[in-house]
Amino acid sequence: MSESNRYRPQPAMVLVRPQMGENIGGAARAMWNFGLERMRVVAPRDGWPNQKAVAMASGAGRLLDEAGHFATTAEAVGDCSFVFATTARQRGLTKPVVSPERAMQMAAEKIAGGEKVAVLFGPERAGLENDDIALANAIISVPVNPEFASLNLAQCVLLTAYEWRRAGAEITHETVEMAKTDWASGIEMEKLAAHYEERLEEAGFFFPPTKAEGMKINLRNLWSRMRLTRADVQMLHGVMRQMVRWKETAERSPRD
Amino acid sequence: MSESNRYRPQPAMVLVRPQMGENIGGAARAMWNFGLERMRVVAPRDGWPNQKAVAMASGAGRLLDEAGHFATTAEAVGDCSFVFATTARQRGLTKPVVSPERAMQMAAEKIAGGEKVAVLFGPERAGLENDDIALANAIISVPVNPEFASLNLAQCVLLTAYEWRRAGAEITHETVEMAKTDWASGIEMEKLAAHYEERLEEAGFFFPPTKAEGMKINLRNLWSRMRLTRADVQMLHGVMRQMVRWKETAERSPRD
Repeated sequence: MSESNRYRPQPAMVLVRPQMGENIGGAARAMWNFGLERMRVVAPRDGWPNQKAVAMASGAGRLLDEAGHFATTAEAVGDCSFVFATTARQRGLTKPVVSPERAMQMAAEKIAGGEKVAVLFGPERAGLENDDIALANAIISVPVNPEFASLNLAQCVLLTAYEWRRAGAEITHETVEMAKTDWASGIEMEKLAAHYEERLEEAGFFFPPTKAEGMKINLRNLWSRMRLTRADVQMLHGVMRQMVRWKETAERSPRD
Repeated sequence: MSESNRYRPQPAMVLVRPQMGENIGGAARAMWNFGLERMRVVAPRDGWPNQKAVAMASGAGRLLDEAGHFATTAEAVGDCSFVFATTARQRGLTKPVVSPERAMQMAAEKIAGGEKVAVLFGPERAGLENDDIALANAIISVPVNPEFASLNLAQCVLLTAYEWRRAGAEITHETVEMAKTDWASGIEMEKLAAHYEERLEEAGFFFPPTKAEGMKINLRNLWSRMRLTRADVQMLHGVMRQMVRWKETAERSPRD
């Protein structure tokens, strides 16, 4: 891996609701230490741009200048077909859980096949929320000491970037053959999820109200796990549209 | 690696002439994050013990309490039969240079064979001196971005400790976090597919007739690709039942 990474496609590192500017800057340095340069920032607590982040980033300041700034996690991964979420805790959501090494191997394979990949990192204290994790296709779990799991944001980014570099070192001269599948993008998945959620809301599916939020997260989690093609997404839109049409026809032609 | 590392022999992490107490504390945290607890400190600039180190170490303070304190690097590795030195620069010394991964695999093998192993980390700015490196049997080189190699002391310790843990871990590439549910069986998937097909048939989804067979195959193919849990299957049955109920309610209460 002697040539620059600059023109090699790479995953986006998405900092979700980061709090301290210093940590954003530290994350930028950690990324650039291993040749990653595509940062995205979702709703940073102290606004954007952030002077403390710039001060801390020093030699990696360019990453902050070029970083994408988004209001929501869904928008930040809208163009991505595969999303990883980093999390320390078990979440009660059914998702593949992979090591950082395996994750970055997967990322390298997918990116070589033309896909766009993102990795989500949560805020310093609380970590990612289940709403964020529901957008992810897989979870990255760092094998920390169960007695002491205190990785900070920049360290978590550092380990991920390190594994990205390791994965690239191994596959640089290897071409990955991928079946030419047109995976649905994050935006397409988001629209599908929203379509179902809206219609099912009208149909009274999310009942009782106390359970509605959990049901919605489970449903979104299901979509994100599915890895749908564009054709699949069109078919599932069609299924829902047809059910609504059926109901509307019934309204106009009552049985009794 | 479910049982504690505490009684598993492990390499000593030797901080040579560290300057900032904060970095010593950060190194302790980095070590304990991955189950390493044997720290040795050589001639720390600000004396020993160091209150700033203690403050920074928080949950890993025990490592500092138990750390060995030495006047010279030679004394610090006096009981070790194999010594690694971490360094970013080429030193013009003929020594094997290994990756952190390979180094910790070697360390694990040697320790399993009854040897004592140490890893040297240099001071923040200057790194190890050639006198220190001369004591080492091999050099660990972290594959950083040649355009930006700015790993700090705690980060370098972190990556080494991470690789130690990986070397010791059983290779579990992928697990799936299951939210109190099992994967659906083939029979359950078949019933789900049949339920959707039947209702969508009634709803007039498979239209025109010439395309119906292909649409059915695509839909079944989609289900079979999905890897659903029992909970997912129940939810998807519920989605369809609710859409039918909505339509039936509409029939009984016509809009016009």
